[in-house]
Amino acid sequence: GSKSLRVITSTQFLISPIGTRCQHGLYFQDGERRVDYILTYHIKKPSSSRSNRQSSRFTDNAFTRSLRRGTARLGRAPPPQPRGDPEVASQDHSMDYHVDDKRLHREEFEGNLRDMGIELEKDEDTKTPGVGFVKIHAPWHVLCREAEFMKLKMPTKKVYEMKQSTGVGAKINTLVNKVTEPLYPNVEDNRTHNVKHLSYMFSREKQHLFDLSDRDSFFDSKTRASIVSVIVSSRSSRTVDWTLLFKCGPCNACYVLTFCCSVFQLLYEEWASYSVFYKYQPIGLVRKYFGEKIGLYFAWLGLYTQMLIPASLVGVIVFLYGCATVDDNIPSMEICHPKNNITMCPLCDRACSYWKLKEACGTARASHLFDNPATVFFSIFMALWAAMFMEHWKRRQMRLNYEWDLTGFEEEEVSDHPRAEYELRVMQKSLKKEHKTQKVLIEKEKLTCRDRLPAYMTNVVMMLLMIGVTFAIVFGVILYRISTKTALHMSNNPTTRSNVRLTVKTTAAIINLVVILILDEVYGAVARWLTVLEVPKTDKSFEERLIFKTFILKFVNAFTPIIYIAFFRGRLVGRPGSYLYVFESYRMEECAHGGCLMELCIQLSITMLGKQLIQNNLFEIGIPKLKKLIRYIKSKRRSFQEEEREKKLQRYETDHFLEPFAGLTPEYMEMIIQFGFVTLFVASFPLAPLFALLNNIIEIRLDAKKFVAELRRPVAARAKDIGIWYNLLRAVAKVAVIINAFVISFTSDFIPRLVYQYMYSPDGSMHGFVNHTLSYFNVSNFQDGKEPMDPQHQVEMCRYKDYREPPWSNTPYVISKEFWAVLAARLAFVIVFQNVVMLMSDIVDWLIPDIPKDISLQIHKEKILMVELFMKEEQGKIQFIDSMMPCGGKEKRNNHAPIARSRSIPHTHSHTHANNF
Amino acid sequence: GSKSLRVITSTQFLISPIGTRCQHGLYFQDGERRVDYILTYHIKKPSSSRSNRQSSRFTDNAFTRSLRRGTARLGRAPPPQPRGDPEVASQDHSMDYHVDDKRLHREEFEGNLRDMGIELEKDEDTKTPGVGFVKIHAPWHVLCREAEFMKLKMPTKKVYEMKQSTGVGAKINTLVNKVTEPLYPNVEDNRTHNVKHLSYMFSREKQHLFDLSDRDSFFDSKTRASIVSVIVSSRSSRTVDWTLLFKCGPCNACYVLTFCCSVFQLLYEEWASYSVFYKYQPIGLVRKYFGEKIGLYFAWLGLYTQMLIPASLVGVIVFLYGCATVDDNIPSMEICHPKNNITMCPLCDRACSYWKLKEACGTARASHLFDNPATVFFSIFMALWAAMFMEHWKRRQMRLNYEWDLTGFEEEEVSDHPRAEYELRVMQKSLKKEHKTQKVLIEKEKLTCRDRLPAYMTNVVMMLLMIGVTFAIVFGVILYRISTKTALHMSNNPTTRSNVRLTVKTTAAIINLVVILILDEVYGAVARWLTVLEVPKTDKSFEERLIFKTFILKFVNAFTPIIYIAFFRGRLVGRPGSYLYVFESYRMEECAHGGCLMELCIQLSITMLGKQLIQNNLFEIGIPKLKKLIRYIKSKRRSFQEEEREKKLQRYETDHFLEPFAGLTPEYMEMIIQFGFVTLFVASFPLAPLFALLNNIIEIRLDAKKFVAELRRPVAARAKDIGIWYNLLRAVAKVAVIINAFVISFTSDFIPRLVYQYMYSPDGSMHGFVNHTLSYFNVSNFQDGKEPMDPQHQVEMCRYKDYREPPWSNTPYVISKEFWAVLAARLAFVIVFQNVVMLMSDIVDWLIPDIPKDISLQIHKEKILMVELFMKEEQGKIQFIDSMMPCGGKEKRNNHAPIARSRSIPHTHSHTHANNF
Repeated sequence: GSKSLRVITSTQFLISPIGTRCQHGLYFQDGERRVDYILTYHIKKPSSSRSNRQSSRFTDNAFTRSLRRGTARLGRAPPPQPRGDPEVASQDHSMDYHVDDKRLHREEFEGNLRDMGIELEKDEDTKTPGVGFVKIHAPWHVLCREAEFMKLKMPTKKVYEMKQSTGVGAKINTLVNKVTEPLYPNVEDNRTHNVKHLSYMFSREKQHLFDLSDRDSFFDSKTRASIVSVIVSSRSSRTVDWTLLFKCGPCNACYVLTFCCSVFQLLYEEWASYSVFYKYQPIGLVRKYFGEKIGLYFAWLGLYTQMLIPASLVGVIVFLYGCATVDDNIPSMEICHPKNNITMCPLCDRACSYWKLKEACGTARASHLFDNPATVFFSIFMALWAAMFMEHWKRRQMRLNYEWDLTGFEEEEVSDHPRAEYELRVMQKSLKKEHKTQKVLIEKEKLTCRDRLPAYMTNVVMMLLMIGVTFAIVFGVILYRISTKTALHMSNNPTTRSNVRLTVKTTAAIINLVVILILDEVYGAVARWLTVLEVPKTDKSFEERLIFKTFILKFVNAFTPIIYIAFFRGRLVGRPGSYLYVFESYRMEECAHGGCLMELCIQLSITMLGKQLIQNNLFEIGIPKLKKLIRYIKSKRRSFQEEEREKKLQRYETDHFLEPFAGLTPEYMEMIIQFGFVTLFVASFPLAPLFALLNNIIEIRLDAKKFVAELRRPVAARAKDIGIWYNLLRAVAKVAVIINAFVISFTSDFIPRLVYQYMYSPDGSMHGFVNHTLSYFNVSNFQDGKEPMDPQHQVEMCRYKDYREPPWSNTPYVISKEFWAVLAARLAFVIVFQNVVMLMSDIVDWLIPDIPKDISLQIHKEKILMVELFMKEEQGKIQFIDSMMPCGGKEKRNNHAPIARSRSIPHTHSHTHANNF
Repeated sequence: GSKSLRVITSTQFLISPIGTRCQHGLYFQDGERRVDYILTYHIKKPSSSRSNRQSSRFTDNAFTRSLRRGTARLGRAPPPQPRGDPEVASQDHSMDYHVDDKRLHREEFEGNLRDMGIELEKDEDTKTPGVGFVKIHAPWHVLCREAEFMKLKMPTKKVYEMKQSTGVGAKINTLVNKVTEPLYPNVEDNRTHNVKHLSYMFSREKQHLFDLSDRDSFFDSKTRASIVSVIVSSRSSRTVDWTLLFKCGPCNACYVLTFCCSVFQLLYEEWASYSVFYKYQPIGLVRKYFGEKIGLYFAWLGLYTQMLIPASLVGVIVFLYGCATVDDNIPSMEICHPKNNITMCPLCDRACSYWKLKEACGTARASHLFDNPATVFFSIFMALWAAMFMEHWKRRQMRLNYEWDLTGFEEEEVSDHPRAEYELRVMQKSLKKEHKTQKVLIEKEKLTCRDRLPAYMTNVVMMLLMIGVTFAIVFGVILYRISTKTALHMSNNPTTRSNVRLTVKTTAAIINLVVILILDEVYGAVARWLTVLEVPKTDKSFEERLIFKTFILKFVNAFTPIIYIAFFRGRLVGRPGSYLYVFESYRMEECAHGGCLMELCIQLSITMLGKQLIQNNLFEIGIPKLKKLIRYIKSKRRSFQEEEREKKLQRYETDHFLEPFAGLTPEYMEMIIQFGFVTLFVASFPLAPLFALLNNIIEIRLDAKKFVAELRRPVAARAKDIGIWYNLLRAVAKVAVIINAFVISFTSDFIPRLVYQYMYSPDGSMHGFVNHTLSYFNVSNFQDGKEPMDPQHQVEMCRYKDYREPPWSNTPYVISKEFWAVLAARLAFVIVFQNVVMLMSDIVDWLIPDIPKDISLQIHKEKILMVELFMKEEQGKIQFIDSMMPCGGKEKRNNHAPIARSRSIPHTHSHTHANNF
């Protein structure tokens, strides 16, 4: 309809997959065998870029040589004797030999693949210069064999009807379904849920169980591709890691063809479009096209976004409660009261003057918005929300596992295979060792801790250095703030002076944000470089190490300034008369009256909004657009002829020009940092969930668009869970409890207020609280040269926010008893809050079963049905045998149980007897 | 040899299983088919115990009726119309009908079993009156079928050699093996570890993979029994739960025969004997005989005991450190100093007199043993130890799973089947509903929350009541202590008075112990009763609910008195002049000087040792001996003739007289309570691990003996893990961190000492600490009638242990600043300790991988080998087909890949080329 038309026109570059040309190149030359997988490689260009190659010749040579020798050793051929220094030998390699060598290896690899039963078709004469394509097709018997090895569960012919609940529950269900109807995407998949095919592990001996009438579609394109991918990357490569040949070069890649089947069309319309932002995602379809791993990501993102709805609702209510009660708040009323005449000590040395507490009226009122009893409730709520989210995700995951026939599947296979870089290092090591000991090593070498020590050391040093850089920058921003503030205070312009605080705060926060954004990119690159340096053995371990490092760096980067403001700012200021100085001259900054909560809130909102708007949206939308523009300009420069040629490109050629799929790590990372913003400091910024929600609604469709239109279709990976991300989420949620406890008890004035109300207040009300929190300072006690220059004030005593003895006591300016009492109360609150919330989370964890009731029942039922099916089959077989051997068979079966047979007559009798009674 | 002889003679009662008679009754009458399983039932005794039966007639009748109707409905027969009130109808049942009815049902059940292919043999004319035996044999085809359904992994013919590490590692390994040689049990099993059979899921289509030359021993006795057990309990009972017939009666049981094979003999000598207490257990053998679940229990117990060795070592060192430094401890030196002349306020009203602090010298010195900096280290150590233990167990479990071919097995099957009692309740409910609505319900009913509400209510009320009882008893003991102390203080005998403290403490602890022991038994029964009341659906949920309840009750029971002493005692005493009174006249008890740590230690050691000695050893050794004695006396009373007859009993008849297996719950529960003692208050009792270790060394052999000799051989249950127990262990370890934090900071004087040293001490030493902790009290401020009667002392001021203002301050007796400072320090310590230890535990958890490296490599290797095996097989098949069809086959395989073939010639060439270079 008009909708799909609009979609097409709005994404011009991508018109091809949906256009008519898309059948082009989906099949082998014979038009029958489907292309399941594509490998590309660099082919020798007669003359171009030779100098470029020359430079990389040496390393490449060493590499191929070791590769060759590795092949020889690990393969069936006898190991050749190493002759002399390999480095000397490599010097006299000719360029041509090198290119030849690579081709020969590739051909050996292709031969291996053919031995595995896979069919190949080469296409070197494409219109794309320098790139050769190998189209791969897996015939039926290979698919069956590998499906059996991979223990794929496939739907059998046996269908069973899922029980529909009846009664009141069903009616409510129908009603709910009707109401939420518009929220479901227009996908058939979601409707036919009351009939399900039993699934069973595919086995060639049990083929009769499966509906094999249409062999072409029994294994769908994603399954076929992943089967081929397993063969290519692990089965055939046991001799040596040949994937190196295909993965390492700049143009070498392996990918799956974008199919322009109905699934793709549907995804385009019902998923990757902003117009359906309010709908559930068609997760089943996503999984069908992209595989389980990507399906799980989007399911997780969907659930997270969904769970953010109640959180942001409650957050908004809490915020509104703060707004509504701001006029009833006694402390801020007292501060703003016109008769309030408290003189405060100056905020900086010399330049600043004494000031009236009344001036802090605005800040005090504003800080009540985020510092009221509802915030305590909200942070408990959010801790439980996080626990609930985890539990719900576990359940959702289990449900998806069941629906996607992953129960009983164990992750492994591809990921356990050593990485090419690792093998290369191992080979280099054994070469070196052989050279040293002058004998051939039979045993396979491993990279020991000693080999990795330098890399580990670099890792530790670099990580510490990076974290140090973050700290240094935060410190720099502090200095900026202090010095600017003093400078601005000295200015004579009264409007400048009145806006000092806001200006300084905002510019500092923006500087912080910019630094965070820049460092984020730097840290991502550093983490990757460090991980490459480590040479982890498997892809899985590479990914985990990379994620771990990136996570730590990005987390530290995002949260250090915030943690400084929340817990350190205004705490290390000393007291009037003996302030604390940095670099001898910079007095540490104080918070405005009303705690640092307000500033924390400003910093949080700027960082979070800025990160989301700039990093997620601007970068993710803007950069692809920019790339497209560049591509467009480039194509303009090309001759018309080439452009024409491009239109006739095969499907696999167009796909080749899409961006390669780089893994889900950046997507998850972005979300987990956001999860940090939503949970970690939620006590001081209850609107965080709302901002996250708004961002995520866009994010889902943005990612969807990216996967559908801008990336090469990735090989479908099976996954039961989201792996390390779940653990990171748990860790963040755990840390959040502690941080919130500290924010409430130390950053906000919640505890001092409580202590005042129940221990010191004469009438149990908050009246007098402000006065109680302010200590006295005798102006004559200022150090020389630190007293304010301003002559207009004649004061004897000024006040400052701290619990210290007054000047007239025996021990002036010593920390008072109230301080210790409040401190004890704060600490007690932390202990109680932390343990109560952790206990409640554990109870939530324990109360909500990991496997949804209906799913566990379903699984159980399916098992029984499967056994029944087999039993029936067996009975049928036995009856068949019995009928073939009318007496012999029966005899044989029962000759051991004469008593049994003789007793079976009364038994049937008894049965009827019982029924008739 | 002489050893085995000794074993036999030392356990006379058990001579039979090893004697020559044991082949008796292991086979069917034909002497060929093995008895895999035994069912017993009550047979009608002509006259005896009729009156007894009469009483239970009604309930039984209602039960069988509903059962019959359930059968009718769920089976194939059409549902009969209910006629009138079932209760009225049940009144006119005759006794004979009832017995008949039961027999008929049993026969129908047996018919069902036969339909499943199982062979039965009845033996009603045994020498055991009133008991009928059904011997069950599963023929080969049934075993194969069920093994396939149960997805059993069986060893294939394919053998592979496990790589032996070489180099230095191997040498160390050999050395270690040689040193630990005597620690290994004399079991073949442990030696042949360098060759392993590949395992594969048994499948009838893949029989050629397995070594089926000896069909009788391919499935061992435990596997056969568990297969039959699955058939009996779940497969055949889909029509109705017939196991009721066999399980419910007093004599009805199902069990496996004790086999007197070599395994049993070996277990007897190398496992269930005190003489091998220092050896590892032959876990493989235990698993082979008793199945995975029991094997896991003993493996867990073994690991726990092993892990206790380092813990108790460190504990002893910490204790010795305390002993060694007792003379250097300044606070106790100050107390014991002869010049110390501090007068303390009286410990009770009127009766007690002022006392000199010097008198507390002994207690102060003793409390240093358990209250020194080493204790803090030890409790951190033990928290990490607990985390380490968990991690090690996970690894051990994984290793065992691998060795026992359980990887990939999912627990379910039997445990998911509804319990008989549940089905009965459901049937009753639907009967009632049918009666009400007068129509037959097609749908199966479920027990809803509403049905269970009364049971839940009872549960909650009873649990609260039981916990209340525990609290009441603890409170009673407190009152006993207070009143006895006062009474003893009044006595004129000076020796009595001097021993007051010790006498009261010890008797109170013993009373507590006795109460704990009695309540433990009561609570076990109550928990079971409450769980039965709940009617949980499956066996698994029954077990979990029971365990949960028992755990809570027993834990509360064991630890309430200890928690009282640790955290409440001496804290709610008020101050001189305004003491706190219970019941108007009992002043709350104080701790002796030196904190309550000493008393906590006494209470802990008495409870722990008493529980272990009396409950575990006396009960577990004594009661079976007593039972044996009773049996012996009974048999004496019997005629000689009967005794003679007993000797000729069949194997299954002797087994019938053994105790039935009641599950592992009590064993685990005992250990988990002990784990609580070892971890929860370890800060105050560093010798706990040692006591636990000594107990467990005995416990292992004791349990082993029980399983081998005194229980019916249980049906082997498969299990991958220890289930709920692991979670309970985790929970205990978590709680332990918090409790230890509180014990160190609040019960011990560790924090006050630190605070004094760094905040108040004039010279940074501990001198003056004792004086600092004592407040002053002006004797004239005593309430009237509360002052000591003793006229011999003339004092003006007495001291008491608290941080309060002195009488001469502006605010006398008000809590002082020092109190708040110390409190803040204590709370800060709790926060720091808890979070640091939790973080460290998490790091331990994260650093130690759950799957041991070698196991994951092995699993991966096996997978590859398996795929290779299949590929080779396939290749063989294809070659066979090719050779049958010399041209057609080849053509067909390759007709789609002409390019491929043509390119395969240079490819082989290139290979040789590369090698020759």
